[in-house]
Amino acid sequence: MNHCEDNNVNAKMVPRTEEEIESLIKRLRRIEGQVRGVQKMVEDNRYCIDILVQISAIQAALNKVGLNLLERHVNHCFAKAIREGNGEESIRELMDVIKQFSK
Amino acid sequence: MNHCEDNNVNAKMVPRTEEEIESLIKRLRRIEGQVRGVQKMVEDNRYCIDILVQISAIQAALNKVGLNLLERHVNHCFAKAIREGNGEESIRELMDVIKQFSK
Amino acid sequence: MNHCEDNNVNAKMVPRTEEEIESLIKRLRRIEGQVRGVQKMVEDNRYCIDILVQISAIQAALNKVGLNLLERHVNHCFAKAIREGNGEESIRELMDVIKQFSK
Amino acid sequence: MNHCEDNNVNAKMVPRTEEEIESLIKRLRRIEGQVRGVQKMVEDNRYCIDILVQISAIQAALNKVGLNLLERHVNHCFAKAIREGNGEESIRELMDVIKQFSK
Repeated sequence: MNHCEDNNVNAKMVPRTEEEIESLIKRLRRIEGQVRGVQKMVEDNRYCIDILVQISAIQAALNKVGLNLLERHVNHCFAKAIREGNGEESIRELMDVIKQFSK
Repeated sequence: MNHCEDNNVNAKMVPRTEEEIESLIKRLRRIEGQVRGVQKMVEDNRYCIDILVQISAIQAALNKVGLNLLERHVNHCFAKAIREGNGEESIRELMDVIKQFSK
Repeated sequence: MNHCEDNNVNAKMVPRTEEEIESLIKRLRRIEGQVRGVQKMVEDNRYCIDILVQISAIQAALNKVGLNLLERHVNHCFAKAIREGNGEESIRELMDVIKQFSK
Repeated sequence: MNHCEDNNVNAKMVPRTEEEIESLIKRLRRIEGQVRGVQKMVEDNRYCIDILVQISAIQAALNKVGLNLLERHVNHCFAKAIREGNGEESIRELMDVIKQFSK
């Protein structure tokens, strides 16, 4: 719990475990590689539809990471805020982010 | 038009201009940088909501690149296929990709 | 709170006020009218693009009602479940519904 | 083809067949019924999550109708416009509607 005193860690935040961080980084690196792959496809003048299929795969992967982060947030930080009576701001934040994703 | 004989260029493809390629690459590099930025945020144990806002920005940027590619495709390759009487396959391809994006 | 004993009211549910119900019904009636409007457009053989614009407006309206319901749910029923220590099922439910909407 | 002289039919429009109209109307009536069902759920003070699941089902059904209309449009009216050299306006229209749906 002394992670909470870490400067980089928001007070509202239940810190992620090593495993959680590793798993997220791994997925984000794969996404980074996919974005580079699309750059290569563009440089090689590859067919638009093939590039679009690839972009759509990146979006699906990003969406998964997003839902994963959201689930963890609701389970930990959000539930904690409600329990500690700091629900109001957390609810506003959560709804804002859900609205942004539902666009 | 002799780009069409290039191995990397699909016969169905009206090749992109230098400017088009450059502009796409520039946007994709920025997206790649944003994905690396999210990795850094995860490593720094940053607040979930802030990371989610960032991911949502990447999705919006990817969506713009996708729509840009789609618009160009419809304007060039797709219109060409219809004019040359090869519309059927092109329509199926186009609808498949639109369905994937509408998910 | 004796609404809670009402058969139609789920125990997990903080009952909606008269005003909330009225406002939701009003919006849903408007949506129902829009769906009937699209039927009329189809019967009149109206231009596809015009019908699609109308369908997209209905989707935006439904999305707004959905976000409104979700916001109220998070504010009331969900926060209550967390406070009462019944968070686990509520979190699963919430994430399931968010996943469905993000599709 | 004399449908084209019908006042209700846009000149850009390849008229729908009786079967196409019937099938669309049937699906839209079902959607109308689903919207009424949600009104009933709200009146009965039903649990938010159950209503949200229902709204998400309506959105999926509307999306299907939209994709169906879009496919038919691309196959008929759009392909016709391209062939007749009136592609420019049609492409703009199509992209506008795709952008609206991708929001």
